[in-house]
Amino acid sequence: PDEGAMAQARELQGRLTKPAGSLGRLEELSIRLAGLARTCPPPPVDPAAVAVFAGDHGVHAQGVTPWPREVTAQMVHNFVTGGAVVNAFARQVGASVTVVDVGVAVELPPSPHLLDRKVREGTRDMTVETAMTRDEAIRAIEVGIEVADRLLDAGAHTLITGDMGIANTTPSAALIAAFTGADPGVVTGLGTGIDSETHHRKVEVIRAALALHRPSPQDPIGVLACVGGLEHAAITGFILRAAARRHPVILDGVIACSAALVAAAIAPESVTAMVAGHLSVEPGAAAALAHLDLSPLLDLGLRLGEGTGAVLALPIVASAVRALHEVATFDTAGVTDA
Amino acid sequence: PDEGAMAQARELQGRLTKPAGSLGRLEELSIRLAGLARTCPPPPVDPAAVAVFAGDHGVHAQGVTPWPREVTAQMVHNFVTGGAVVNAFARQVGASVTVVDVGVAVELPPSPHLLDRKVREGTRDMTVETAMTRDEAIRAIEVGIEVADRLLDAGAHTLITGDMGIANTTPSAALIAAFTGADPGVVTGLGTGIDSETHHRKVEVIRAALALHRPSPQDPIGVLACVGGLEHAAITGFILRAAARRHPVILDGVIACSAALVAAAIAPESVTAMVAGHLSVEPGAAAALAHLDLSPLLDLGLRLGEGTGAVLALPIVASAVRALHEVATFDTAGVTDA
Repeated sequence: PDEGAMAQARELQGRLTKPAGSLGRLEELSIRLAGLARTCPPPPVDPAAVAVFAGDHGVHAQGVTPWPREVTAQMVHNFVTGGAVVNAFARQVGASVTVVDVGVAVELPPSPHLLDRKVREGTRDMTVETAMTRDEAIRAIEVGIEVADRLLDAGAHTLITGDMGIANTTPSAALIAAFTGADPGVVTGLGTGIDSETHHRKVEVIRAALALHRPSPQDPIGVLACVGGLEHAAITGFILRAAARRHPVILDGVIACSAALVAAAIAPESVTAMVAGHLSVEPGAAAALAHLDLSPLLDLGLRLGEGTGAVLALPIVASAVRALHEVATFDTAGVTDA
Repeated sequence: PDEGAMAQARELQGRLTKPAGSLGRLEELSIRLAGLARTCPPPPVDPAAVAVFAGDHGVHAQGVTPWPREVTAQMVHNFVTGGAVVNAFARQVGASVTVVDVGVAVELPPSPHLLDRKVREGTRDMTVETAMTRDEAIRAIEVGIEVADRLLDAGAHTLITGDMGIANTTPSAALIAAFTGADPGVVTGLGTGIDSETHHRKVEVIRAALALHRPSPQDPIGVLACVGGLEHAAITGFILRAAARRHPVILDGVIACSAALVAAAIAPESVTAMVAGHLSVEPGAAAALAHLDLSPLLDLGLRLGEGTGAVLALPIVASAVRALHEVATFDTAGVTDA
C-alpha cells in the first residue's frame, strides 16, 4: 500500500464535516483503499462485478452433504437465468453477475450468459488422490485471472467473489486447516445444513485427506491441488489479478476466505486488495479472516455463498469511498470545527 | 403483525432456491416485514426517504459538548446543499433526503430544500425547567407525523430517521435512562468525542435533570417534554406514523433509538415497523435496542448520526424483501431440494 495516499486520506477524513473518527470502520476502509489505489481519494467503487465460479467435487462421493451433485449444474442454470439470490442482491446494488463454469461435472448447455472455462469435470476425490494435478490447479487459477481481466477491462472498478459447488465447504475447510494449522474439527462447519453424523464424517474426510497428502503451506499451489477445488483455484487467481491491478476485491464467505489464504500465501501483498464482505456462519471463515488479519463488514448469519454476503457489503464499501469524494470540508462548507 | 402473512413468508423462504435458513437475519427480517405489511411478499423497500430533523438544546449551556451551538444551523445548510455525509450515503443507495427545521435556535434562510416547521428556537435547559411544554412536544411530534405523511404520500415505501442537533446525545441519554431505568452513567457516551471531564459533567447534568423532573415512563409525552429534544419529538411522530401506515422505518443511532422508546411507550405495536439500522458506539443505543428487543443490522463503529447508519442498512433491508419477490423456487427453477 502507498503510505502517502493513506496519510492523505487520513488527513482528508479529519477535514470532512463530521466529528473526527465518527465514521468508524468506514474511515479505516477508505484509508486502506486509498493505499491500494495509490491515490486519494481512491477511484469510486462502482461499477462492481460479481464472478460466480462453479465447480464440482470428487469428495462428494464420501457423503459430506445431503445435496445431490446435480444441483451445481441446476444452480448454474438458475444464475444464468437470473433467478438465484445473488442475482436478486446484485440487481439491488447495481452489480453485474458473470457465471463461469470452471469445473462442473456435466456438460452445460451453451449460453451467452455463461463462460465455459471448464478445466475438468469436477475434481478427483481428495481422500483417494489429489483433487487436481498441479497443472489443472494452475489452469483454474488462470481462469480466475482471465475473468478478472475481462471484468476490469470492461470497466469494473471492484470485483466480488462468488462460488457454486455442491460439497465445496469441504475443500474450503481442508484449505483453511492446511494454511492456518487449525484442527479440522474446529474449522469445519455445517455447510448448507447437515446433521451431526454427516458433520462427523465430513471432519474425518478432511482429516484423512490432510493425512494422505500432508500439504505444505510453503507450496500453496500444491495445497490447492491436493485438497482444493477448481472454483477455489479460480477465485485465487481472481483475487490475485484484482490485487495486481490495484482494484479492491470483496470476499464472500468461507469458499472465498479459503481461496484468499491461497492468494495470500502466493503473494502476501494481495491482502491489501481484500475486503472481507461478511462473516459467514461457517467457522472456517472466521479462522481464515483472523489469519489474514481482516475484519468482516457484515455479520448477518449468512451461509449461502454465491457471493451474496459480499454483494450486500458493496454499498458500504462504496459509501466509504464516496465520502472522500463528495462530503464538504469544514473550511469550504463554513462549518465550525470543535 | 399479521401472523398469516408471516407464515406465508416463512413458507416461501423455505421454497426459494437456497438451503433453508441460509440467509440468516435477512430471512427473519423479510418475515417481520411481511407481518408489518400484512401481505407476502411485502411491498418493495425502495423508494426510501430520509428525514433529517434539526433542533437545538438549552442544555448546551451546561457545557456538555465542545461544539458551538451554531454548528446545528451550519450543518442544516450543509444538508440542504448536499454536502454532508448523509447526502453522500443517500446518493449511494438511491434515497431522498428531506431536511426539517423543527427547532433550530436561529432563523434559517428559506430554501426549497428545507421544511420550516420550527416549533421554538431550541429547547429550554432541562436542568432548570422542562425542555419543552407538553404542547410544544405534541406540536413537534405532529411535525414528524406530517413529514412521514408527506414522504409516504409522495411514494416512499420506507422511511429513514435522521437528526441534527448539537448536544442532542444528552437528551437522548436522559430519555433512555428514563425509559429503561438504566443509570445515566451507563447509557451516557462520548457523543461527538468529548474528554472525560466533559463526560463526567454530562452524566451529572442528566442526573440533575432526571432528579428535578422525576419523569414517569407511564407518561411518555411528559418524559419527552421534560428531558427530550424537538428533533426527538419529531422522530417519535415520524416513527409512529410510519408504523400506523404499516411502512418500515429504519432507525439510525442513539437519537433515533431514544425517540423509538417514546414511540414504543405511546404505541407498543409501533415496534413492529422499526428496523434497527446499526449499533451506534453510544452506549445508550444498545440499551434502547435491548429494551425494544431489536437487533441492529450493522455494527461499524459509527457515531455520526444524521441518518448515516440507517442509510447504510437500507440495501440490506431492500435485499431481504427483494429475495421474496425475485428468487426462483425449487419447483419452478428445476433445482433439486436436499
